[in-house]
Amino acid sequence: MRSLYNRVAGQNLERLAALSDGVFAVAMTLLVLDLRAPAAETIHSEHDLLTALLALAPRLVTYLMSFLTLGIFWLGQQAQLDRLERSDRDLAWIHIAFLCAVTLVPFSTALLAEHIAYRVALIVYWVNILLLGLLLLWTWRHAVRAKLIRDDTAPDVVAAICRRIIIAQALYAFGAALCVVNSYWSIAFIVLIQINYAVAPPWPSRR
Amino acid sequence: MRSLYNRVAGQNLERLAALSDGVFAVAMTLLVLDLRAPAAETIHSEHDLLTALLALAPRLVTYLMSFLTLGIFWLGQQAQLDRLERSDRDLAWIHIAFLCAVTLVPFSTALLAEHIAYRVALIVYWVNILLLGLLLLWTWRHAVRAKLIRDDTAPDVVAAICRRIIIAQALYAFGAALCVVNSYWSIAFIVLIQINYAVAPPWPSRR
Amino acid sequence: MRSLYNRVAGQNLERLAALSDGVFAVAMTLLVLDLRAPAAETIHSEHDLLTALLALAPRLVTYLMSFLTLGIFWLGQQAQLDRLERSDRDLAWIHIAFLCAVTLVPFSTALLAEHIAYRVALIVYWVNILLLGLLLLWTWRHAVRAKLIRDDTAPDVVAAICRRIIIAQALYAFGAALCVVNSYWSIAFIVLIQINYAVAPPWPSRR
Amino acid sequence: MRSLYNRVAGQNLERLAALSDGVFAVAMTLLVLDLRAPAAETIHSEHDLLTALLALAPRLVTYLMSFLTLGIFWLGQQAQLDRLERSDRDLAWIHIAFLCAVTLVPFSTALLAEHIAYRVALIVYWVNILLLGLLLLWTWRHAVRAKLIRDDTAPDVVAAICRRIIIAQALYAFGAALCVVNSYWSIAFIVLIQINYAVAPPWPSRR
Repeated sequence: MRSLYNRVAGQNLERLAALSDGVFAVAMTLLVLDLRAPAAETIHSEHDLLTALLALAPRLVTYLMSFLTLGIFWLGQQAQLDRLERSDRDLAWIHIAFLCAVTLVPFSTALLAEHIAYRVALIVYWVNILLLGLLLLWTWRHAVRAKLIRDDTAPDVVAAICRRIIIAQALYAFGAALCVVNSYWSIAFIVLIQINYAVAPPWPSRR
Repeated sequence: MRSLYNRVAGQNLERLAALSDGVFAVAMTLLVLDLRAPAAETIHSEHDLLTALLALAPRLVTYLMSFLTLGIFWLGQQAQLDRLERSDRDLAWIHIAFLCAVTLVPFSTALLAEHIAYRVALIVYWVNILLLGLLLLWTWRHAVRAKLIRDDTAPDVVAAICRRIIIAQALYAFGAALCVVNSYWSIAFIVLIQINYAVAPPWPSRR
Repeated sequence: MRSLYNRVAGQNLERLAALSDGVFAVAMTLLVLDLRAPAAETIHSEHDLLTALLALAPRLVTYLMSFLTLGIFWLGQQAQLDRLERSDRDLAWIHIAFLCAVTLVPFSTALLAEHIAYRVALIVYWVNILLLGLLLLWTWRHAVRAKLIRDDTAPDVVAAICRRIIIAQALYAFGAALCVVNSYWSIAFIVLIQINYAVAPPWPSRR
Repeated sequence: MRSLYNRVAGQNLERLAALSDGVFAVAMTLLVLDLRAPAAETIHSEHDLLTALLALAPRLVTYLMSFLTLGIFWLGQQAQLDRLERSDRDLAWIHIAFLCAVTLVPFSTALLAEHIAYRVALIVYWVNILLLGLLLLWTWRHAVRAKLIRDDTAPDVVAAICRRIIIAQALYAFGAALCVVNSYWSIAFIVLIQINYAVAPPWPSRR
């Protein structure tokens, strides 16, 4: 039996959505703090500056990869919250845990940018993506179980959202496993998955 | 007697909620700035990187503890604002003072992470939580006194919200007092309280 | 004659309010970055840590002063936007200029915190407050002239908002002028004005 | 044929607007982090402090220029989203890419502030503005093609928004090209264009 407070708290979906948008917006913008302009003392010609900028390329790649990650998961949680009729306290807490994983993205991105050749950095990055996926799946499962979903949601949409997360996570896990070969292979594969999800080419699909 | 301006200002609950969501979102994301990726110069092998990451563990604990704190108080203020019919200037100012205490959380977290063994750091952290609780209680008391609460709010909900804050603060105070023994005991106890509030196990409760 | 684009742009009051809430939320939270936890290497006892924290006191004063400033001007712009029926492109731009002055507050606060005894720092801080006041006054004057204000707004509310800004700015200017004596006098006086506006004691007032 | 998930995701215009407002708010406020208060150790008199502040002038110019840029593009995307009836997944992704270009503005601003005399820095800054313009144009073109625009939008408004972006980008490109002479000429010209768009003087215009 739940206490009275717990039945009152966490019911406002708009507030939860607003908190999410805020956390995503800050996390997306903090990513750029890893792109530091080269210091004036080290630059003595146009050529120096160009070289220094080209040296930033790996950081730009991890930056874009993380922006894609955040974009994909922003769309994911937005699609979920849109389908909800109401929230409850547990859903609010699972979603806050999801936002916690979102705020870790700037850290795991900085780690990967600084140590792009090391497998440990890649595994940490992948664990972050895995956490995002699991928490999103948990949110959805809880919403189904607690009957928080809007009545006009077709059962195949409910299933499509679950399937989507599981397939994506399987692909990410395969990408991460590629680091047995080389961590650059992993990054390349993960970026390809992400671009596929962002561009969403009209592959022939069963549905 | 209040001046005309003071009767006009601070009446918009949606704007107050939006400011709160923004402050919480930024504070939650700034917490992660304390988790700094180890510099590339100091790392020469996978093993070095793993060791450096494990050395971040205490910071990760304070990070998660503070995220829990912010989550708990975000839910607290959201549950309160949801019950209000309208706002007034005084409520807006008490809430802004509450947000001020929220912005101090990244500072007191960084202090605790840097000096985890010192009691002074723990006391500062606890004072921050105490301030959050007192200001939340003050908001609610003012809302009751100034008749800002929605008519459909049962009197036992009004009491439940007060009781909730007072019990939680009593537990936090006990946790902080444990630092007479050792500041790690305090941290462990405070984290347990927070997890209890977040997970909200269905203890048999009177209501 | 205005171009077609200029007649279409900037009409959404909710978006302008959301941008404002975001900028205020970030500025309020960035203020705390000036409160840096003392580094672990410099602290060897509870007493060291306490001394180091007490040395942060001037920064805490400027932090609280700036939080009060941002709170006062957040309430000011919120009270104005609440009274508007609609927006236009010019109002949007004046408000964006106001937000630009808001984002300067963390800078002028850091400057004052670092150089609290210097008049130049105090004058910069005051110019920032002056800019905020002038831009708020300009927003309101433009709203009156362009008939953007809601019909149910009594003429004395229109006048009260103008009067409020002008009186406050006169007091701030007097406070800043006190730096001829000593910049601490200025700060004390400005803090007193701000607390007066925040607490809004029920002085007998003509209206 | 689109998968079911892709037909469900990205339809919420309010959430997209909220994410945009958050990203713009953070980017606008992060700009100020480049304005660093001079360190206390280097300042020994009022005159020292004044000199140090005057030395910040170039950074203040790039700061204001970038704030203008962000203001112009915030108004641009707000005017577009306001005209939409609904969103789809592709529009959401194009808009997220636009927000990615927005988060790069603090980086390219810092680069220009640090290396104001170098053409490379200016070209990077211009590429950032170009990206913003192209993505805004792409959003609009997609909205037209996918029939996402509100029915009450006159065809000349649709055309006016496109024309506006193209003319502005032509002017920016000319400004950037001026760096063949000198990068200060470019900056001066770009600032003039921006002030023109912000102030929007009532030139006689065909429409």
